[in-house]
Amino acid sequence: MRLYDIIKKKRDGGELSTEEIDFFIRGVTDGSIPDYQISALCMAIYFRGMNVRETSDLTFAVRDSGDRLDFSAIKGIRADKHSTGGVGDKTSLVVGPIVASLGVKVAKMSGRGLGHTGGTVDKLEAIPGLKTTLAEEDFIRQVNEIGIAIVGQSREFAPADKKLYALRDVTATVDSMPLIAASIMGKKLAADDDCIVLDVKTGSGSFMKSVERSRDLARLMVDIGKRAGKKMVALITDMDVPLGNAIGNSLEVIEAVETLKGRGPEDFTEVCLTLAAYMLSLADMGTPDEAKALAKRALLDGSALQKFKQMVAAQGGDPACIEDTDKFAKAKYSHAVKATAAGYITRVDTEAYGLASLALGAGRNTAEDRIDYSAGILLNKKTREHVEKGEVLATLFANDEKKFAEAERILLAATTFGPTMPAKAPLIYDIVE
Amino acid sequence: MRLYDIIKKKRDGGELSTEEIDFFIRGVTDGSIPDYQISALCMAIYFRGMNVRETSDLTFAVRDSGDRLDFSAIKGIRADKHSTGGVGDKTSLVVGPIVASLGVKVAKMSGRGLGHTGGTVDKLEAIPGLKTTLAEEDFIRQVNEIGIAIVGQSREFAPADKKLYALRDVTATVDSMPLIAASIMGKKLAADDDCIVLDVKTGSGSFMKSVERSRDLARLMVDIGKRAGKKMVALITDMDVPLGNAIGNSLEVIEAVETLKGRGPEDFTEVCLTLAAYMLSLADMGTPDEAKALAKRALLDGSALQKFKQMVAAQGGDPACIEDTDKFAKAKYSHAVKATAAGYITRVDTEAYGLASLALGAGRNTAEDRIDYSAGILLNKKTREHVEKGEVLATLFANDEKKFAEAERILLAATTFGPTMPAKAPLIYDIVE
Repeated sequence: MRLYDIIKKKRDGGELSTEEIDFFIRGVTDGSIPDYQISALCMAIYFRGMNVRETSDLTFAVRDSGDRLDFSAIKGIRADKHSTGGVGDKTSLVVGPIVASLGVKVAKMSGRGLGHTGGTVDKLEAIPGLKTTLAEEDFIRQVNEIGIAIVGQSREFAPADKKLYALRDVTATVDSMPLIAASIMGKKLAADDDCIVLDVKTGSGSFMKSVERSRDLARLMVDIGKRAGKKMVALITDMDVPLGNAIGNSLEVIEAVETLKGRGPEDFTEVCLTLAAYMLSLADMGTPDEAKALAKRALLDGSALQKFKQMVAAQGGDPACIEDTDKFAKAKYSHAVKATAAGYITRVDTEAYGLASLALGAGRNTAEDRIDYSAGILLNKKTREHVEKGEVLATLFANDEKKFAEAERILLAATTFGPTMPAKAPLIYDIVE
Repeated sequence: MRLYDIIKKKRDGGELSTEEIDFFIRGVTDGSIPDYQISALCMAIYFRGMNVRETSDLTFAVRDSGDRLDFSAIKGIRADKHSTGGVGDKTSLVVGPIVASLGVKVAKMSGRGLGHTGGTVDKLEAIPGLKTTLAEEDFIRQVNEIGIAIVGQSREFAPADKKLYALRDVTATVDSMPLIAASIMGKKLAADDDCIVLDVKTGSGSFMKSVERSRDLARLMVDIGKRAGKKMVALITDMDVPLGNAIGNSLEVIEAVETLKGRGPEDFTEVCLTLAAYMLSLADMGTPDEAKALAKRALLDGSALQKFKQMVAAQGGDPACIEDTDKFAKAKYSHAVKATAAGYITRVDTEAYGLASLALGAGRNTAEDRIDYSAGILLNKKTREHVEKGEVLATLFANDEKKFAEAERILLAATTFGPTMPAKAPLIYDIVE
């Protein structure tokens, strides 16, 4: 078998066989296929696409390119959620405890943030003392004992994806539906869950800017997961505005804790309850409506908060911070960003809001960057709200005053004002089952 | 400027600017652009194409990536022909002398054969003693003195093309009209001719299998040449059957000499006269019809043969071989390939005929292979002729008897017989001016 023939077949619109796709990904993994052939094939896939069968085979080959987890020692049904990434998206910190408090197991391997998107592992590490690296047996023991653990990735999952992504990133072939789906699902399926709820973000803060493309991606990933024997649902959720009011690690943990206490922002609470409902429903806890009622109760009766405290304590974090979030380290400086004109906020560039937070030190430009956990943004006003000239739009936090100027510039440039209130956009666009 | 943005622009169907194309080719030449980005851009160009302006800019950038020739010391009008490559195509050996004998200068840099196609330089080297490497001042002096010189390429012309072609060859991006045109014309325009006649081959022995695509390529290359200030014509000529009856270096030289003596095969003679007519016509020697009459006379009165002998002698070859072609070294062995059934030859795979000749030792699989000048094929029967079972189709020549079996197998597999005579195909499909 020669990669040349595989490139030519795809270039001419052919359907690649399972053997051809396996040959490709094996060659990517062991380095036997040169980069220039990989990038040529990625570009041919960009133009010609792949059907569900090919994309599934690609996903499984990516999954099998490295280690796979074995969660069979975990008792009970294992459910996970996976977000395609957004700004202010701290849902895992709320959804995980809700679901675990109702008896469904949450054995979660999470990622770190890069660029404008944050990562759950970084957010958890904002909690003093909390460890996100656990030996695998300790991880499984914790899930069995308290029902939930959220840690970073200890092993190299889907190394073919790492290599492929690095090449796609410099050859303008990232934006290909089958390649995106195989990248996300190849990594996700290396874990060993029974039920997966995908949170496919759509809008200015996500990498899928249109609802149609988000829906297509969701459909494809749900189909791939089902072919792998998983129970699957995808939610298309709005990322045209940041989720909740907090962006930045400590600030987001505090908002998540407030939400677990029943005092969270309305949009964020609703997305969390819906995600939890579908995880529970897939795990045989009733219809989505019934499961949502259970999730609400878990918030109201404090059992989800209790579960979160248990997890924090089990991973070495200080539960006192959760009881009293004033104990989180504060940024040295804050700065109020004021409206330059009166009017309604008609639109925000959510990705730019993420970049403003990055500029304050809350994120990473490269994988090696260190994060300032207390840096970030609290939004005082969001899309559809009216502001007067000089009214505070947002409060910036940083440990370096010099960072405010750039963040403020980015934030104001990313905020559009107008004379009339825009129509309300859906929070959840669609459910793909 | 970043190549990433250029790939993305082309991927999305944009028109690349002159500066972007120059940046690309400079980076290919100096090695600053990695192969994986080059191949991704080639694949994007494969799918999106390039307009005439982009393709011309690409051609000029390729041309300017290395040395360029200066023929200004040559007195008179300089005309050249360039074939896209075929099987049995020894036209340069006849056309050059015809044109030079009529006073138009032929300063020709030719290539070597590779794969199923032969090269003029290899054919000339089949003449005992003939040198195809001349110092540039000697080359120019010879053209001024006798009107013609045909040599190999002494310098590195269009090195960007060499690099690009090597990558295209392994990434299934060879078959792209703008990339083909820029490759051919980038090298051709590094020479310094006033008039160029392109011989675009079409059919089973050429790399353009359809007349439509050949016509598109011809149109594009003529337009590029005109933008470079050249007088241009392209002929679309048939390569669905080998040209003439001889394939292989000595055999082809002998057939060319017979043609210069007025005894050549009808098809080959006609193509030579037409190519010569358009070269002469571009060089202000009258209409194509008038020029063709001149070319015919040069064959009939022996002046073209005389010019060829002059050139051979000037380049150190033995003119006695031209007078008496029996003096060419003969292959040790010959073998008659006989028809396995009676009927008309309805179709031949001309590329396979070239590969059969290669199998006999007449060509090169890789640039390092050595050629057996006396090996090759004489066709006793061609398409549209009737054969009886057991009648001789072709005679094979080689210095190694063991090579006959494979060559015969290839030849017979490439020859289709049928009960009725197929329609006559045009020898010259079109003239693109």
